[in-house]
Amino acid sequence: MNLILLFEKDFTDNRKVRLAGRRLRHVSGVIHAKPGDALCVGIEGGLIGTGTVTRLDGDVLEMDVETAGKPPDPLPFTLVLALPRPKVLRRMLVSAGSMGIKRIFLVNSYRVEKSYWQSPFLDGERIREQLVLGLEQARDTILPQVFLRSRFKPFVEDELPGILLRLPSLAAHPAAGEECPRNPGRPITLAIGPEGGFIPYEIQKLVSAGFSPVRLGSRILPVETALPFLVSRLF
Amino acid sequence: MNLILLFEKDFTDNRKVRLAGRRLRHVSGVIHAKPGDALCVGIEGGLIGTGTVTRLDGDVLEMDVETAGKPPDPLPFTLVLALPRPKVLRRMLVSAGSMGIKRIFLVNSYRVEKSYWQSPFLDGERIREQLVLGLEQARDTILPQVFLRSRFKPFVEDELPGILLRLPSLAAHPAAGEECPRNPGRPITLAIGPEGGFIPYEIQKLVSAGFSPVRLGSRILPVETALPFLVSRLF
Repeated sequence: MNLILLFEKDFTDNRKVRLAGRRLRHVSGVIHAKPGDALCVGIEGGLIGTGTVTRLDGDVLEMDVETAGKPPDPLPFTLVLALPRPKVLRRMLVSAGSMGIKRIFLVNSYRVEKSYWQSPFLDGERIREQLVLGLEQARDTILPQVFLRSRFKPFVEDELPGILLRLPSLAAHPAAGEECPRNPGRPITLAIGPEGGFIPYEIQKLVSAGFSPVRLGSRILPVETALPFLVSRLF
Repeated sequence: MNLILLFEKDFTDNRKVRLAGRRLRHVSGVIHAKPGDALCVGIEGGLIGTGTVTRLDGDVLEMDVETAGKPPDPLPFTLVLALPRPKVLRRMLVSAGSMGIKRIFLVNSYRVEKSYWQSPFLDGERIREQLVLGLEQARDTILPQVFLRSRFKPFVEDELPGILLRLPSLAAHPAAGEECPRNPGRPITLAIGPEGGFIPYEIQKLVSAGFSPVRLGSRILPVETALPFLVSRLF
């Protein structure tokens, strides 16, 4: 936690916050802060700044908040991700949040196990918890938007055209002939398939929607590794 | 598992293998192979090729093996990684193995919890299991070497000079002034600190040993995300 993310409900007046729970435990148990210490804070959707500890005990953390600057720039990037295994999804949400990805579509694919769509981790609040961890890590304040799309064909045919807006888009596909470009200098929509990859029908649908299949050398990376690898290559 | 990694003990004669356990379960339960199917195999430390299933039941998988080509090139890269939390380490070993990293030094640092060094996951066999998962994912056959160095100072002062051989080396450090270079086109040794980063003394020791501190934009990424992000930037 390199930044303590603050929400509207945390404020007791214009510049004062009162926190309990996870953030209190972190500040007292990991950071070992004491009254007078200045901690890095950020206001959800807004500025980052400093929180000066005015009270810290087993029950409550109070701080005076001064805002000072903008959070880091968001990535001009939309992620279309075949729904991974729930535990992997949780970690990927933290990772995506930390890298500044702001729009994520979790989509179905032939090789996505049906049971994944029943996972309690897909609950909006549980997703948000992971995204907050990513923001706190990267000192960001802007929560990504996550959309669940459990039917592949209607998503690709009806919704994707409005998302892509004719911008060139890439689908990570180990069998592709083209290498993933380096730092092409423009906004990107990237599709990443499930472990085992998109099936040929899905690749064909994505190509019809405007995606170019690209590969990452001759190695097939786990999706968790592929996401930061691809983001780093593209930006 | 995009490749079934075979070891000397699996061979019943020159070209035949007999497998049980995890690999048998994967081939029957996930790949749903049947006799006559040709699967991608690789021989530890050697060639990749094809295994034609000759017998598959609840007890045993037998294949005739034909080798055909070389595994993907290794990365000209040495990783010096402050020992992460054991669960994170396990995943990072898979990730590192999949990316073709072949030499990993797990080192101590002020912010590494002492208990991490007592983890059963540091056992050689447990480390090897994770590396094999990474190789199977990426269709590689060359096991990385992993070295445990539980004392920072002797490692940096006495051992690192022989590892670096005066080649320029990088230390990921969010407070660095320089950005991580893109694709510098040469072998790299990269040091990644613990969550919370190396302390100033450690950075100073690494600089004395020949490391240049570099950062990745204004975001502080989790170490699990930072590793593939950095590898992708550097190669």
